[in-house]
Amino acid sequence: MAVNLSPPSVLHPVAGVRIGTCAAGLRYSGRPDLVVFEAAPGSEAAAVFTRNRFCAAPVSVARDHLAQSLPRALVINAGNANAGTGDAGIADARACCEALARHLDCTPAQVLPFSTGVVGEPLPVERLVNALSGCADRLDENGWLDAAHGIMTTDTVAKGASRRLVLGSREITVTGIAKGAGMICPDMATMLAFVATDADVDRRALRACISQAVERSFNRITVDGDTSTNDAFVLLATGKAGNPCITTADEEAFTLLAEAVTAVAIELAQAVVRDAEGATKFITIEVVEGASEKDCLEIAYTIAHSPLVKTAFFASDPNWGRILAAVGRARIAKLDVNALSIYLDELRVFSRGVRDPGYTEEMGQAIMRKPEITLRVALAAGKHSARIWTCDLSHDYVRINAEYRS
Amino acid sequence: MAVNLSPPSVLHPVAGVRIGTCAAGLRYSGRPDLVVFEAAPGSEAAAVFTRNRFCAAPVSVARDHLAQSLPRALVINAGNANAGTGDAGIADARACCEALARHLDCTPAQVLPFSTGVVGEPLPVERLVNALSGCADRLDENGWLDAAHGIMTTDTVAKGASRRLVLGSREITVTGIAKGAGMICPDMATMLAFVATDADVDRRALRACISQAVERSFNRITVDGDTSTNDAFVLLATGKAGNPCITTADEEAFTLLAEAVTAVAIELAQAVVRDAEGATKFITIEVVEGASEKDCLEIAYTIAHSPLVKTAFFASDPNWGRILAAVGRARIAKLDVNALSIYLDELRVFSRGVRDPGYTEEMGQAIMRKPEITLRVALAAGKHSARIWTCDLSHDYVRINAEYRS
Repeated sequence: MAVNLSPPSVLHPVAGVRIGTCAAGLRYSGRPDLVVFEAAPGSEAAAVFTRNRFCAAPVSVARDHLAQSLPRALVINAGNANAGTGDAGIADARACCEALARHLDCTPAQVLPFSTGVVGEPLPVERLVNALSGCADRLDENGWLDAAHGIMTTDTVAKGASRRLVLGSREITVTGIAKGAGMICPDMATMLAFVATDADVDRRALRACISQAVERSFNRITVDGDTSTNDAFVLLATGKAGNPCITTADEEAFTLLAEAVTAVAIELAQAVVRDAEGATKFITIEVVEGASEKDCLEIAYTIAHSPLVKTAFFASDPNWGRILAAVGRARIAKLDVNALSIYLDELRVFSRGVRDPGYTEEMGQAIMRKPEITLRVALAAGKHSARIWTCDLSHDYVRINAEYRS
Repeated sequence: MAVNLSPPSVLHPVAGVRIGTCAAGLRYSGRPDLVVFEAAPGSEAAAVFTRNRFCAAPVSVARDHLAQSLPRALVINAGNANAGTGDAGIADARACCEALARHLDCTPAQVLPFSTGVVGEPLPVERLVNALSGCADRLDENGWLDAAHGIMTTDTVAKGASRRLVLGSREITVTGIAKGAGMICPDMATMLAFVATDADVDRRALRACISQAVERSFNRITVDGDTSTNDAFVLLATGKAGNPCITTADEEAFTLLAEAVTAVAIELAQAVVRDAEGATKFITIEVVEGASEKDCLEIAYTIAHSPLVKTAFFASDPNWGRILAAVGRARIAKLDVNALSIYLDELRVFSRGVRDPGYTEEMGQAIMRKPEITLRVALAAGKHSARIWTCDLSHDYVRINAEYRS
């Protein structure tokens, strides 16, 4: 029951990227679970990975391969995370790369592997390798939507986003897909995003693009505060659009491209929150007038991770005492509890140390019943701000995570 | 449905402490909700309070009064937290102290106020003050159990603990009560504990006692990771036992007393976790072989606060991938993922980077079905360790916190 989320209607193809999806039967039956991306020779790539120390085997191998050469292909499976699997898991991830390299006539180091699904089970590598030809035979520039379905685990809606922009006389496309039903859901390990553009971009500019995009998107969402063992976000640039190569020195072009990539990443990140396990509300938390962005983020995440605030949102209960308590325990250096204000959408709930004189429970409840709510905390301490997205904590979150595997 | 928790059968009276409990009808009807403690003249006291910046009005007033003089009385109400109430809340808390001071013939600064209940509502101070004579008339050394009932909010079981020890030729008693159904439940704000002894102790030794006790008890429990606006733990020492005054220089006597106070505090703290909102499992998390106690605590709390680990415990699911992911995201400087081991009770689940060869799901599940489980992480990094207590995350946690107020 995702919050205001439909499958993507248009995912523009990206020249130089072909995608094939098929069913390998790794865990699910009767649905696609294996996806191959092929990038044209000469494509640039940048990636960010989970910071979890127990990173999955494919994350280690992808990092290693990316340091060696530019990728020509990605192989992604759903249903098994290949995490907590030790040396055997590393060997399995490498075997997948070697098999796909033979199909695509490239080197194994030019293939990046990604996995998502159950932690701690051996990857059914033979079944996966046998199914690769099915993906390789189907490679198609219009394969984005199928791929968005193929990488799903507990997701209920396929997630994709697409933008077009004009640079000089050239039209440039940015298209991406993602999966994830919780920023943190290590068991169904978790968030994967693949975005490609046909723009010609140099490596440094592409890295600057992905840094900016991830800071404003995937690093600004939380469902339950955990970081998975398998998180990865890859940005490919094929250079097929024929534009003059974009560098960070070319400020206008760089900004336009970075904004398009960021917009796609934000739409995908929000889709992850909208489809979060059990979510019934999509919550934007804005903390403004802070002494630093770090302070603002600390307060925003403390609110977003409070189970009591989350259950209040689920209950449509304008229980501002819980918000107050979360703000009060955030680990920041200075907090003036008599100067800050708290708003639900545009309604001021709390200021000058007390409930706002104009506030009534009925007004608060009318806002809390909406499926999308903005909670704003104004700290009256400076000029910095931060915005993150999260969801409520519902009966279904407990049901989904308690019943899974049992 | 508390986990292995019954009301206290014996709460030994403490010479010099009299307690009166009555019904003021502040929020609940037909049950006691107001408690008065009276301490004999000359009693020493030490206290620790919430670190939440939005501390409740009574916390501010109690801190202030304690700095001015030794307390002769405590007044505690359930049903209203008097938090988020600004200057009016401070005036209300002071009014309660003044009223009780008149009954007990002491100064208002000799009275410490405590409140627990809903945040943000004005304290019904007139009803409270009117009911005070009912408490004052009933002051009795055997009032502990009634008081344990009188301070309950969402608690389902009254919580108390009592120890006796012999110091030289004197018998010394330590008795305490507590309330709380979650370390963090700011709305029902939250944890209060009152412990008294008839020992004669000097102020420095009493403060050392409370520090040691709180570090090993109330600072080692978590239900949902929040810190309430009203947390307080008070330790009174009446000096009526006739022992030579205990100082920190008197190592043997100090150690005996500190251990008794700590034992009472641990029993009360564990009772809070056993009676936590929706709890069906009592979980001990031990992190051993750490480079520092701080590292061990960080890992223990990261596991304890993971909603995915908590729902797995609720489901009796030996889902060690979730434990692994929580350990991996803990913010410590160094973690050797191939050296650490994870145990459920005495069963080794994970070591050397993979599932233990001897482990089976059936063995794991047999342990996870128990109402009390010890999860142990051995870091193989040093000699430090830490132990905390927590509970699972159940349907009832969401139900209780979503339905409350609605």
